[in-house]
Amino acid sequence: MNTPPPSPPSSSTPPLSLSLSRLSINQETVKQLSLPELAEGCVKEGVTAVGLWRAPVQEYGVERTARLMRETGLAVTSLCRGGFLTGIEEAPRARALDDNRAAIDEAAALGTDTLVLVSGGLPPGSRDLAGARERVADALALLGPYAEERGVRLAVEPLHPMFAADRCVVSTLGQALDLAERFPAHQVGVVVDTYHVWWDDQAPAQIARAGRGGRLHAFQLADWITPLPAGVLLGRGQLGDGSIDFKALRAMVEAAGYDGPIEVEIFNEALWAREGAQVLRETARRFRTHA
Amino acid sequence: MNTPPPSPPSSSTPPLSLSLSRLSINQETVKQLSLPELAEGCVKEGVTAVGLWRAPVQEYGVERTARLMRETGLAVTSLCRGGFLTGIEEAPRARALDDNRAAIDEAAALGTDTLVLVSGGLPPGSRDLAGARERVADALALLGPYAEERGVRLAVEPLHPMFAADRCVVSTLGQALDLAERFPAHQVGVVVDTYHVWWDDQAPAQIARAGRGGRLHAFQLADWITPLPAGVLLGRGQLGDGSIDFKALRAMVEAAGYDGPIEVEIFNEALWAREGAQVLRETARRFRTHA
Repeated sequence: MNTPPPSPPSSSTPPLSLSLSRLSINQETVKQLSLPELAEGCVKEGVTAVGLWRAPVQEYGVERTARLMRETGLAVTSLCRGGFLTGIEEAPRARALDDNRAAIDEAAALGTDTLVLVSGGLPPGSRDLAGARERVADALALLGPYAEERGVRLAVEPLHPMFAADRCVVSTLGQALDLAERFPAHQVGVVVDTYHVWWDDQAPAQIARAGRGGRLHAFQLADWITPLPAGVLLGRGQLGDGSIDFKALRAMVEAAGYDGPIEVEIFNEALWAREGAQVLRETARRFRTHA
Repeated sequence: MNTPPPSPPSSSTPPLSLSLSRLSINQETVKQLSLPELAEGCVKEGVTAVGLWRAPVQEYGVERTARLMRETGLAVTSLCRGGFLTGIEEAPRARALDDNRAAIDEAAALGTDTLVLVSGGLPPGSRDLAGARERVADALALLGPYAEERGVRLAVEPLHPMFAADRCVVSTLGQALDLAERFPAHQVGVVVDTYHVWWDDQAPAQIARAGRGGRLHAFQLADWITPLPAGVLLGRGQLGDGSIDFKALRAMVEAAGYDGPIEVEIFNEALWAREGAQVLRETARRFRTHA
């Protein structure tokens, strides 16, 4: 276990040690664990909620996963992920919409009200970010009512600007809210993920805006560590290992009215190479002291 | 040479082929060339201006470089770089300020009126971005008058948010202008670098703001290509190889009143591994068609 760097005094007010009742472990953080192992580990550590990913859930079976969650008393706080809605041509767009409807159905079957959406990057050869963002809006108009009928909210996740070309043209919380606010709040909201927004001096005002509009649908944590690995996707760090002041960001989302689950979502080869139950335990401990 | 991806029709109005009289080659783009080789290559290709870096200039000699530039008729459009002003402790801060005064002297000796500043990242163990930005402002208050006396303008460069922790806590053009506007425009302005701002939907408004205030001191180009390499610093792409609509961004800076040099600044191991004169020629050709 790395020794976390010394933390400067925080100007925020939350208690120093956070109750595990707020913690949700995102499945990808400990993806070396099977779903039964994840459930067992959570019960053992006193963790009461998880965020799930479509691929491992489909592999284990959607209904079977839902039953496992019920039997072990675990809440499902979100399903990752729908999205990838920036394509231009008709056939791929229709396939993407169908896939998102399936994701909404899966979220409903798992008993979560939140489907996380990663919007998608620029289509090959395109340099038109604004056009790509409009196509995301077009898709939300079609998917929002479908999700509402199934009791699911679409949560648009702004990804760090370093993903703008190849993964997500929605780069800031402000942009995500500009999109979401075209639709009813019970259909479309946003995700605040510390890793993606920590650098942004507009984030405090945009978190408040999300709260006022009832659109703060999920709050996720990962730390920012450097150097970034090639491809940058797997650079998310364990809580406390990096540059992010989690207590300050949590104070902002709580001041904005958010009292829901806090998901820890880390993609990191070094964590995946370790024993999963140990990583789960470490994550719960880090959550209590750093989040 | 890579084939550039097809470019969508641009909504901007500049002519299709840009005059080389606007081009400045940043020395780092072809850092395999010595200063005399760089000068010779520029003269041969019809390039009339260069942006220089402190380390190779110091190695060759500041006065000797100034003489070489005069003799070959090359204008020096900027010197890279001062900055790294986020330190907390007194002794390192004093050293950083001294080093920046030396950089200002070198800029004056080279006959350029623009010193590019990279602000610096978070000090080790710190998570206080706002505090680090304030320390940059404190340093600008000391350095601005010193620069003015020597006919040099400080150009604060916002770096892409992926550099916020370890290189530059100033991540957007808006933040850079918030800093610069505390000082007279002839002391402190900003750099617009396409690589750092292309993703930002606030960039058009901020470019206009920079122009209105007379603070648009430099305009630099590099393309955004993926996947990013480990460490991400050397991921800048040759013009036309990536996702950036240069003509649209040039139209914005020109509408904001900027008619100065356009520096191509690329850090890329693959370009550095090639014959420098060939890269210089390719860069000039790409500039004419893509910029």
